[in-house]
Amino acid sequence: MADPAAPPTAASLAELGRRVKAASRVLATASSATKDAVLLAAADLLVDRADAILAANAEDVARAEGQGTPGPLVDRLRLSPARIEGMAGGLRQVAGLADPVGEVVDGWVRPNGLRLRRVRVPLGVVAVIYESRPNVTSDAAALCLKAGNAAFLRGSAAAISSNLVIAAALRDAVEKEGLPVDCVALVEDTSRAGAVDFMRLRGSIDLLVPRGGRSLIEAIVEHATVPYVIDGDGNCHVYVDASADLDAALAILVNGKTQRPGVCNATEALLVHRDVASSFLPRAAAALEGVELRGDAEAVALLGPPAAEIDDYAEWGREYLDLVLKARVVGSLGEAVEHITRFGSGHTEAIVTRDLASAARFQREVDAAAVVVNASTRFTDGEEFGFGAEIGISTQKLHARGPMGVRELTTTKYLVDGDGHVR
Amino acid sequence: MADPAAPPTAASLAELGRRVKAASRVLATASSATKDAVLLAAADLLVDRADAILAANAEDVARAEGQGTPGPLVDRLRLSPARIEGMAGGLRQVAGLADPVGEVVDGWVRPNGLRLRRVRVPLGVVAVIYESRPNVTSDAAALCLKAGNAAFLRGSAAAISSNLVIAAALRDAVEKEGLPVDCVALVEDTSRAGAVDFMRLRGSIDLLVPRGGRSLIEAIVEHATVPYVIDGDGNCHVYVDASADLDAALAILVNGKTQRPGVCNATEALLVHRDVASSFLPRAAAALEGVELRGDAEAVALLGPPAAEIDDYAEWGREYLDLVLKARVVGSLGEAVEHITRFGSGHTEAIVTRDLASAARFQREVDAAAVVVNASTRFTDGEEFGFGAEIGISTQKLHARGPMGVRELTTTKYLVDGDGHVR
Repeated sequence: MADPAAPPTAASLAELGRRVKAASRVLATASSATKDAVLLAAADLLVDRADAILAANAEDVARAEGQGTPGPLVDRLRLSPARIEGMAGGLRQVAGLADPVGEVVDGWVRPNGLRLRRVRVPLGVVAVIYESRPNVTSDAAALCLKAGNAAFLRGSAAAISSNLVIAAALRDAVEKEGLPVDCVALVEDTSRAGAVDFMRLRGSIDLLVPRGGRSLIEAIVEHATVPYVIDGDGNCHVYVDASADLDAALAILVNGKTQRPGVCNATEALLVHRDVASSFLPRAAAALEGVELRGDAEAVALLGPPAAEIDDYAEWGREYLDLVLKARVVGSLGEAVEHITRFGSGHTEAIVTRDLASAARFQREVDAAAVVVNASTRFTDGEEFGFGAEIGISTQKLHARGPMGVRELTTTKYLVDGDGHVR
Repeated sequence: MADPAAPPTAASLAELGRRVKAASRVLATASSATKDAVLLAAADLLVDRADAILAANAEDVARAEGQGTPGPLVDRLRLSPARIEGMAGGLRQVAGLADPVGEVVDGWVRPNGLRLRRVRVPLGVVAVIYESRPNVTSDAAALCLKAGNAAFLRGSAAAISSNLVIAAALRDAVEKEGLPVDCVALVEDTSRAGAVDFMRLRGSIDLLVPRGGRSLIEAIVEHATVPYVIDGDGNCHVYVDASADLDAALAILVNGKTQRPGVCNATEALLVHRDVASSFLPRAAAALEGVELRGDAEAVALLGPPAAEIDDYAEWGREYLDLVLKARVVGSLGEAVEHITRFGSGHTEAIVTRDLASAARFQREVDAAAVVVNASTRFTDGEEFGFGAEIGISTQKLHARGPMGVRELTTTKYLVDGDGHVR
């Protein structure tokens, strides 16, 4: 790694990018056994070096507290022996996943005898820009390495001391197994200008995955020249159909809203069919004690005080990430779909219904990464989908949509076999 | 369509974008039968209106000739009754393809009983920026419509009169089958500034496919905020291994270089193993009469005059699109792979060999959309791969790599079915 005393310029960042790209070419053909050995060695090193990681983390925490960082953000930054064990466990878990590389996705023979196979191969270099949690350093690197990609990481300034020690352990594990050390690289320049240089390393980065807030996403859309997949907002709706089992609807709503309100698959909005609004909304208000309720006039009347009417139309499109729920009464499933088309963010949309036609129509007409029938929006998640782990949840339509596991960190190539075929 | 007398501003382009997006929502759930009926109706309308199309095309041709446009470019612009029949035939052929929408790509049941399916759905709005050939207007629209996408088209200024009449026929066919007319829209502002506005219509364009030269690609990488797939250069190599059947190698080389030198899957470079260079290169020189030969000193000596030594190192990375071939003698398969890694454009790379291990290693180590054994590079093509038609050949790794047929104009969504599941 470069001397930390000399903050990298764009030129040295480009040089680092070339080294990571070169390393990725070696990694791309590494065996599953070698990649898994790296992950297991890294897990052991994190545990062995727990004291050094905690000491570095204490520097980050002290700096954050000194800068008056709000408590919850400091908590996100803080590591503990248990969290380090968790990071090691994550590495071991990813080692246990199936290797996506080499899968023959499909294949066929042309009438002229030419044989085609489409096989899964690594992307090359996967870059991740992420915010304060230092555990992302090992979580993201694990998924990248498993899929045969070099991990080019850019964490936050707040976590730089922790990230450097964690990345050093990962790099040592990579070297121990005989792979080029730059299969994992951490960018040390955490400046805003450096972020823009990073997202313009075309030729050195094959996929950029941002894990951060809206301003990061906006910067990437505006400035990035490398390919990226956006892990965007989740303004997730639950629509309670006229035929819904209201007990199930209540459980799904309460789970979606309150089980972990700060995540992107939390429920942000409730749509209720008018036929059941007067029986459902008062029960919802009672069950959601402690949740701030907002809505249109009709919903607010049924929710009762202190529910407040929404006066800003744009609020219907907002992701609260908090114990706040907005509710609206609709006259039909079609009206619910229209509302979701207008205000949804394309993440997860759910219907609660006992009607087969309603379920089918909702799943057909709603355009989102996950369209859910009779389950909580909270299930849109790599672990819950069975991917073992995820690097993010794509809300874009290109390349990957929904939870991104190791498969989504690959591309394919065509292998074409002939016997001297010419056109 | 807007009044052609009033060239659209960015605001009216944005308004058109919103209309196309709204139309795409209706089209997304249209049946295969309806979409195919549109394509067949459009084919009939093109033939019915051949006179009007030819008259408009004559305007474009006259304007191009008046501006001193080079002959080959005027030829690309020129339509004939046969070419219009060809466009109609293309529409009918796409109507006959299988509809990719609705395919269940995979699906599984989680231990908790939650059922997941990943299903193929339209992207929404597919935008295409293309250069002079007016047939792209109907070819591209056909593939977009087949996959359930609105086609948002931006042709060249040179072909605007032809494109308007062709697009009007497509729009009439869309309306005839009861779909919103803006399922096909042609942008009338063909200015350079307008192109940048177009590639920044985030929210209205789900995928942008550029079909044009390097300056268009560079403008998109720099300015686009909408997702895109790049149809890039093809600096395609043929590597003749020590164990190659030299007759097969010669046929593959001549076919790749001369059958249609102006296309991206034409062979641009020859790498020959030193063991067979002295027997192969003189034969290649004789067989490639009329092809300008360049190369390193060793190759040039064996090719004989008038082959010329390459003095500009960067030339190894150049796509000629012409009857020019560059050749190099290498000492090993590894050296060939290294050369390709350095100078290839990630399009199509071929090996001619009789050795199983060489074939396997080449296919494993070369990172390109198509890696070919014992066949011409010219096979990397939607028709040749069996896709029926293609909208381009992606040289990027995200979303689609290689020939892009109707499948590559779709995305997927997850359908999640529970029985009141909560976390």
